[in-house]
Amino acid sequence: MTAATFTFELIAQQGHARAGVFHTPHGAIPTPVFAPVGTQATVKAVTPAQLQEISASLILANTFHLYLRPGDELVAEMGGLHRFMNWPGPILTDSGGFQVFSLEENRKVDEDGVTFKSHIDGSTHRFTPEKAISIQENLGADIIMAFDECAPPYDRPYNESAMARTHAWAERCLNASHRTDQALFGIVQGGVFPDLREASAQLIASLNCPGNAIGGLSVGETKKEMHAMLDIVLSILPAEKPRYLMGVGTPEDLIDGVLRGVDIFDCVLPTRLARHNAAITKTGRLNLVNAAFARDPLPIDPECICYTCLHYSRAYLHHLIVAREMLSATLLSIHNLYTLIRLMQDIRQAIIEQRLNEFAQKVSI
Amino acid sequence: MTAATFTFELIAQQGHARAGVFHTPHGAIPTPVFAPVGTQATVKAVTPAQLQEISASLILANTFHLYLRPGDELVAEMGGLHRFMNWPGPILTDSGGFQVFSLEENRKVDEDGVTFKSHIDGSTHRFTPEKAISIQENLGADIIMAFDECAPPYDRPYNESAMARTHAWAERCLNASHRTDQALFGIVQGGVFPDLREASAQLIASLNCPGNAIGGLSVGETKKEMHAMLDIVLSILPAEKPRYLMGVGTPEDLIDGVLRGVDIFDCVLPTRLARHNAAITKTGRLNLVNAAFARDPLPIDPECICYTCLHYSRAYLHHLIVAREMLSATLLSIHNLYTLIRLMQDIRQAIIEQRLNEFAQKVSI
Repeated sequence: MTAATFTFELIAQQGHARAGVFHTPHGAIPTPVFAPVGTQATVKAVTPAQLQEISASLILANTFHLYLRPGDELVAEMGGLHRFMNWPGPILTDSGGFQVFSLEENRKVDEDGVTFKSHIDGSTHRFTPEKAISIQENLGADIIMAFDECAPPYDRPYNESAMARTHAWAERCLNASHRTDQALFGIVQGGVFPDLREASAQLIASLNCPGNAIGGLSVGETKKEMHAMLDIVLSILPAEKPRYLMGVGTPEDLIDGVLRGVDIFDCVLPTRLARHNAAITKTGRLNLVNAAFARDPLPIDPECICYTCLHYSRAYLHHLIVAREMLSATLLSIHNLYTLIRLMQDIRQAIIEQRLNEFAQKVSI
Repeated sequence: MTAATFTFELIAQQGHARAGVFHTPHGAIPTPVFAPVGTQATVKAVTPAQLQEISASLILANTFHLYLRPGDELVAEMGGLHRFMNWPGPILTDSGGFQVFSLEENRKVDEDGVTFKSHIDGSTHRFTPEKAISIQENLGADIIMAFDECAPPYDRPYNESAMARTHAWAERCLNASHRTDQALFGIVQGGVFPDLREASAQLIASLNCPGNAIGGLSVGETKKEMHAMLDIVLSILPAEKPRYLMGVGTPEDLIDGVLRGVDIFDCVLPTRLARHNAAITKTGRLNLVNAAFARDPLPIDPECICYTCLHYSRAYLHHLIVAREMLSATLLSIHNLYTLIRLMQDIRQAIIEQRLNEFAQKVSI
């Protein structure tokens, strides 16, 4: 199914951490990598040109949202997602599973799939593994995801049945996918239960996908539990393939993940924080709506070299926020995304130079 | 008062239309020119880098808004408006007069100035000619405007008294202005009354400002009346200095103004239309929220070479609008601003090449 267009080169390792390159039909992704999220075929408030300036290499778009609006067939008609949203680099689409299962009252699951109501107009829809693949083939991302069920982390019976469905659905997704220019990743589930996580990682690894993902983390469990699950799963997932920790996260989570052997991350956090006036810095978050910044001539982070920090004071950003100017979301998104992308670049270099421990101690982000 | 830093070179003329260059401390402005409006020290939804990409040379900011928020003293403390908003090129500030007199119920005029209530917090403030200059000196724009009173166009008694105040205030502004790196422009008023416009143009011309402006047009009068007033005023204002038609406007108004001898224009129209989903094209306006564009693979204007038209379909822009994504305002603002800036570049070239009549007939914008 997946052609040799997808290869993963491991450049360097230190402990469990890896520096690599994942080759895709739309370009190479240096790993570890943080992927900005473009839910509705746009990373909110920034242009693709601005994403390229901050060296974004991989971006994520959401199958669930694009299926509902504008529709995957329309995107296909417009030449696919890369052309539609003007992103020439690699794209990853999720399977829609996470969003569908988040609908709670408005969805009904059976062994074959899920029936749900649209949050936009209340209309009824149905996702099956085959449908999730068909939508993702229409969208045309480089990396596509198996249709999975993410259960509440502490509910054991639910996690057992959701995991079983996730495994059965992953096989159906593999059988349903036909495009040789898309890499289908399987997803490990299992909540906070070590034996379930182990079983899930073994089964997903056995499917021999070109990459593997870890779902159902950072969804309400403790950090300690997340780390324990990562350690189990990452000891089983094949080292020669990229490992993707879905929906994570904070700078601390990214570092923790890399140290354990994760290669790919995505999260809405940097752009969502930006729209809520918060900037990510090495010494914590700044909320620029705070009056303390009204006369502050410093940039968000005096050591940062993003467009925002090179050109704008906290006082100006505070003014934009108070005056409700859209530019604040753009400038803060650029800074927050750059901060996480740069963190991954720096940690990658530290792995290559075998100085990861020193790096991880120094970075207090 | 004004040093030799401000010089106006006339490169070519055809009929009343002129192609020139106005030199300022922050760079040269090729004229005729359309200035994007950055009311609150930001051209809404676009970055200065994006403005430079579309060859914006002059931008406008509003004294009234910046005085109220964040305050002109704060802007001065942050190094002035150029540095605060990261615009390295020429800036023009209006005097605040237009906004203050628009407050109607919330302002009281006397011969010395105007007392008004803030639309933000209801606090009481007072503008005099000296205060308007002091604020504009704090902001530090290259071109600053005399404090004027814009009366309803058809009210003769009001126009007579407002014009008298405007003239007295222009002289007080000249006496109050001290910075040699700012060019103070006087403003002609007089409603739709030929004799008042003539008297006003003569008095303002006699002040020997480095440039002159025409206010009180495009405020409710007919096109025919606007053109008649322009013809009178432009026959009197000195030809060797730039002439600025304030708050105008549409592509048709820009062409009509250039043909009559106007050099500088500003208007919120292109960015405001963008935020209301409308694109300016050579064949009229497109409102991209219209379902007719949902599957339209064409760019807004197939002949346009702006970032938006080179990279995005109408279908994508329609999707962004329906999905309420901020990027639509950015992409439409870039296109609309570029369309007017390019129109001015093209008309300038036509004047230089003495083919203005042909050009004006061909352009059906």
